[in-house]
Amino acid sequence: MQGEPEREAGTGSRRGKGAGTVRLAELSERSGVSTPTIKYYLRERLLPPGRRITATQSEYGEEHLRRLRLVRALIQVGRIPVTTAREVLAAIEDDSLNHHHRLGAAVEALPHGPEADETDPATAAARRTATELLELLGWRFNLEVTAASRPFGMLVAAIAALDHLGYACDTAHLLPYARQAEQLAVFDLDLVEEFPTPEGQVEAAVALTVLYEPVLLSLRRLAEAEESNRRFGTDG
Amino acid sequence: MQGEPEREAGTGSRRGKGAGTVRLAELSERSGVSTPTIKYYLRERLLPPGRRITATQSEYGEEHLRRLRLVRALIQVGRIPVTTAREVLAAIEDDSLNHHHRLGAAVEALPHGPEADETDPATAAARRTATELLELLGWRFNLEVTAASRPFGMLVAAIAALDHLGYACDTAHLLPYARQAEQLAVFDLDLVEEFPTPEGQVEAAVALTVLYEPVLLSLRRLAEAEESNRRFGTDG
Repeated sequence: MQGEPEREAGTGSRRGKGAGTVRLAELSERSGVSTPTIKYYLRERLLPPGRRITATQSEYGEEHLRRLRLVRALIQVGRIPVTTAREVLAAIEDDSLNHHHRLGAAVEALPHGPEADETDPATAAARRTATELLELLGWRFNLEVTAASRPFGMLVAAIAALDHLGYACDTAHLLPYARQAEQLAVFDLDLVEEFPTPEGQVEAAVALTVLYEPVLLSLRRLAEAEESNRRFGTDG
Repeated sequence: MQGEPEREAGTGSRRGKGAGTVRLAELSERSGVSTPTIKYYLRERLLPPGRRITATQSEYGEEHLRRLRLVRALIQVGRIPVTTAREVLAAIEDDSLNHHHRLGAAVEALPHGPEADETDPATAAARRTATELLELLGWRFNLEVTAASRPFGMLVAAIAALDHLGYACDTAHLLPYARQAEQLAVFDLDLVEEFPTPEGQVEAAVALTVLYEPVLLSLRRLAEAEESNRRFGTDG
């Protein structure tokens, strides 16, 4: 760290000394995250190290503020374990991937509920239903990558659970939900594209995927109450 | 229990001896739930007691099979704590409520993620945004009950979290998601109405609310991957 070459300060330098760099105390103040928590994130490599300026002090830039925001979204809001969060961040930083794949790998690394139980016969049937659904939808990208895809595994497990409990869950039941998901993904990607840089977009894709889940689930429950009142309510 | 009056067996008797009643071992076989687990559910009052037929044996009816299915949906799939599950079931059984309110109370009792932090100024702002959203949507039922509504509290907490992390989340961002939720609620209630009895409908409303959450979240992530490939992918 000490041996890191000094770089010219300026707008082009990502970690250059200048308007954008701050000490730990100010990083804490600006992010609203306590210094012990920031130090913990640094130790756990959830946050890249700052630029060492003396033996005991480092300075931090805008990318630390942004990353801190993402780490809080994952850990404090999404309640994602530290190991998984590190995996998500590694995908974000993987320079060997193009923009789409980096974005996909990061979202893919997010936790995804219970695994499908491969010893259970219902799992094989659920996998056929899920694959048939992707074919009906013409989701060609997902059809190519299904074998390794975590969200696909999550869908298979969810269908198998419904089947076990005796609730019909064939493609006819799933298709309307999938069509809604297509619309949601358009809104999600529109939000992501509001961010100007590729790094910002990948971070936003991960953060917004996590942060909009409770928004979506609470809106669905509120809408259910509204619709139930419309159908069965005695007042109004 | 021993003193419970014997009832005439027959189709009209809900717990009558007959084609629909089974012993514990068969209840376990038909439901796929082990006898120790069923005994645990009985002790925890998640399952109503069977009809005592000898000092050591009881028999169980269709309503036990149905209830067992719901309890598994809540506890094994939804990972809902036993105390909360008991609260949900109490709402289902509350005869003082009409059909809509019983359905609402049961879904309402479901867990709903982190509580809004009332000491945080962002919470007050988020509450204003959420209320404004309900007004824009014309969700009159929810506007009447918001103060006590758990899904509303969950929405407020989610908006406050987005705000804290610097992601814009005003009514313009939320409205398209809420419109999708309206559509989802129509599908949800259509599924619920496939069940013939009021009890079956309330149980299905709770089970399907819980069981379709992973379906919805996994479909959204798959659709995001598809949409990301469409926008940023280099192949195809």
